[in-house]
Amino acid sequence: MSTPWGDWLTAQADQRELDGLRRSLTPRAAGDRVVDLAGNDYLGLSHHPAVVAAAAVAARTWGAGAGASRLVTGTLQVHADLEAALAAYLRQPAALVFSTGYHANLSVVSALADRECRVVSDAHVHASLVDAVRLSRAALTVVPHNAVAAVRSALAGSRGRRTLVLAESVYSVLGDRAPLVELAAVCEEYDALLVVDEAHGLGVHGAGLVEQLGLAGLPHVVVTATLSKSLGSQGGAVLGSSALVEHLVNRARPFIFDTGLAPTSTAAALAALEVLRAHPGLPGLVRRRVDDLAAALGVEPPAGAVLSVPMPSPRVALAAQASALAQGVRVGCFRPPSVPDGISRLRVTVGAGVPAEDWARATEVLVAVVKEHS
Amino acid sequence: MSTPWGDWLTAQADQRELDGLRRSLTPRAAGDRVVDLAGNDYLGLSHHPAVVAAAAVAARTWGAGAGASRLVTGTLQVHADLEAALAAYLRQPAALVFSTGYHANLSVVSALADRECRVVSDAHVHASLVDAVRLSRAALTVVPHNAVAAVRSALAGSRGRRTLVLAESVYSVLGDRAPLVELAAVCEEYDALLVVDEAHGLGVHGAGLVEQLGLAGLPHVVVTATLSKSLGSQGGAVLGSSALVEHLVNRARPFIFDTGLAPTSTAAALAALEVLRAHPGLPGLVRRRVDDLAAALGVEPPAGAVLSVPMPSPRVALAAQASALAQGVRVGCFRPPSVPDGISRLRVTVGAGVPAEDWARATEVLVAVVKEHS
Ligand SMILES: Cc1ncc(COP(=O)(O)O)c(C=O)c1O
Ligand SMILES: Cc1ncc(COP(=O)(O)O)c(C=O)c1O
Repeated sequence: MSTPWGDWLTAQADQRELDGLRRSLTPRAAGDRVVDLAGNDYLGLSHHPAVVAAAAVAARTWGAGAGASRLVTGTLQVHADLEAALAAYLRQPAALVFSTGYHANLSVVSALADRECRVVSDAHVHASLVDAVRLSRAALTVVPHNAVAAVRSALAGSRGRRTLVLAESVYSVLGDRAPLVELAAVCEEYDALLVVDEAHGLGVHGAGLVEQLGLAGLPHVVVTATLSKSLGSQGGAVLGSSALVEHLVNRARPFIFDTGLAPTSTAAALAALEVLRAHPGLPGLVRRRVDDLAAALGVEPPAGAVLSVPMPSPRVALAAQASALAQGVRVGCFRPPSVPDGISRLRVTVGAGVPAEDWARATEVLVAVVKEHS
Repeated sequence: MSTPWGDWLTAQADQRELDGLRRSLTPRAAGDRVVDLAGNDYLGLSHHPAVVAAAAVAARTWGAGAGASRLVTGTLQVHADLEAALAAYLRQPAALVFSTGYHANLSVVSALADRECRVVSDAHVHASLVDAVRLSRAALTVVPHNAVAAVRSALAGSRGRRTLVLAESVYSVLGDRAPLVELAAVCEEYDALLVVDEAHGLGVHGAGLVEQLGLAGLPHVVVTATLSKSLGSQGGAVLGSSALVEHLVNRARPFIFDTGLAPTSTAAALAALEVLRAHPGLPGLVRRRVDDLAAALGVEPPAGAVLSVPMPSPRVALAAQASALAQGVRVGCFRPPSVPDGISRLRVTVGAGVPAEDWARATEVLVAVVKEHS
């Protein structure tokens, strides 16, 4: 039966097909023996026995779900424990946990910014921050990537207006880091609030770049993070002053009107954080592997844990990806239009959880595949 | 140290305090012996042994997190299994799972509607649907609650424009149900797409009201659901045609740019669905308890599982809530401004998971408390 909406969906799908943009979901089988260098489980903590056990215990203790929104009856002691542990590890006064990193970003921007505000955003921040600005209805100024001077002039042009500046600590696609010290200074100078998304910094750089650069706890710097990458679980967090957390609890719609993070995921993230604190060498292992693999593949080592290897064409990139998979190594692949500059790339995530012999074999496979496809 | 943002946060907090609107989080302790009639675990499945066990097994099998977004490498066989089971149970051609119900609602509206579209929304839909419309940038018409005639005239006035109509099957705060048959008919007549949020209908009414009314699978009716209420877990879903699902996979930003739902929560929801299918009497038990408790308290039985008991004042409502808690029964409390009509209410969730003797005692406690506070 043809309906206007049905026809529209078909036309959209046909266009995607024509443009070579159609993507589909491929379920992973349990226990496949592939070495996964495509995900974001940077420290391998998702499978750590203590993390797995914590999830199981939490399900028994609290049930599989939080059962309600956080303000009603869905705040469990395990949420409070995770918030305290995150705040301590990231050296922030307070933390608030969300059911996804996406919710954390939507919440912090939409609860702070309104029509009267200005948001100055790096051109490459994550979709969740872009959506967050749209939700907030604030006036948006997008500045070129990592351009502190452009941020400064945007701030100079909006004096007297409450202003947020949005950046990521590590940009996973581009592989670079934000000039956080400079951004924080310019925000302080102009009374703006800097929001730093540590999604790809936390864990890979210990407590994150904000903490490492001595910016944690500054009143003009707020941090957001996900629990779904280095902490191997699901969820997100906002870290900052307790006044900020109190404000979010009272005003952030994606916090207030959402069921609390599942106890399993909450406890898993807490256990992962404990493993990380007990093994402060883990981030260093990731970075050593990043450097080694970058040298072996002849690319620049990125600031985070994701290597980009340029390929001559989208077709060759796909062939290289398939060849690696056939040899037991799963990597990602970026093609136009989801690359900023039209260059197709293999995307290789370095993980500390890959056993040393698998790591050595994966490196060999990738070196051969890249050589063959350049 | 005083900063303009800090001062703004303080002023906002002071205003909330003055208005008596300040809310804060109270963690629940593990194993507290309180009978919880405040959450949304309508069928008590969050603590069901099969559900708890499924979460634990999933953590061992897949790890604590999905490890990546669904399109990268975060689609696991357990996601595909849950999607198939949800589609089968709700009698829909296809389903897509999201990391929260909020993400499901944000996704379906923002991926379908754009600036060229109109959205006709019931005045009382959930915050996630309101935010979704804002994200979509569609033109919004809010119609009075359950007013089919108003929907019809809004549709008549936007002929030729792609239009979505938003409703919930069961409105938990108001306690009533949407006129779904009439809404579906008017949407069919005007080529609009009806989006029905079954958050509070699924489970309490078996496969939900859309299915019970024979509307499942109609090309002009789309369903969204949460996994965090009757299914006792976390997450959300959109159900409809496979063309719709394909569209969401390719276009819904809160799906594409978000880590997949944690394996623990996915497996728990799947196990809960299996318990529900194996025990088709569960929804009936909830509705019998709803009827019994409503009769005992002298209020109208609601369409869902949440009873509202009007209280003479906000202060008395709080006192009644505290008195019930002191007697081991936790209920919610609605006060201005979060009530549509200024009347404070106790909010009592009926759950099938409460053992019979606890249920009998809770009923006694509530009858006495309400009598004392009227
Ligand atoms: C930079 C960044 N921020 C936020 C998110 C969202 O986090 P989550 O997947 O936990 O929703 C992601 C990725 O998913 C991300 O890469
Ligand atoms: C009607 C309705 N829709 C959507 C949601 C969001 O679902 P979730 O909590 O799974 O994000 C809720 C409640 O939380 C709800 O009540």
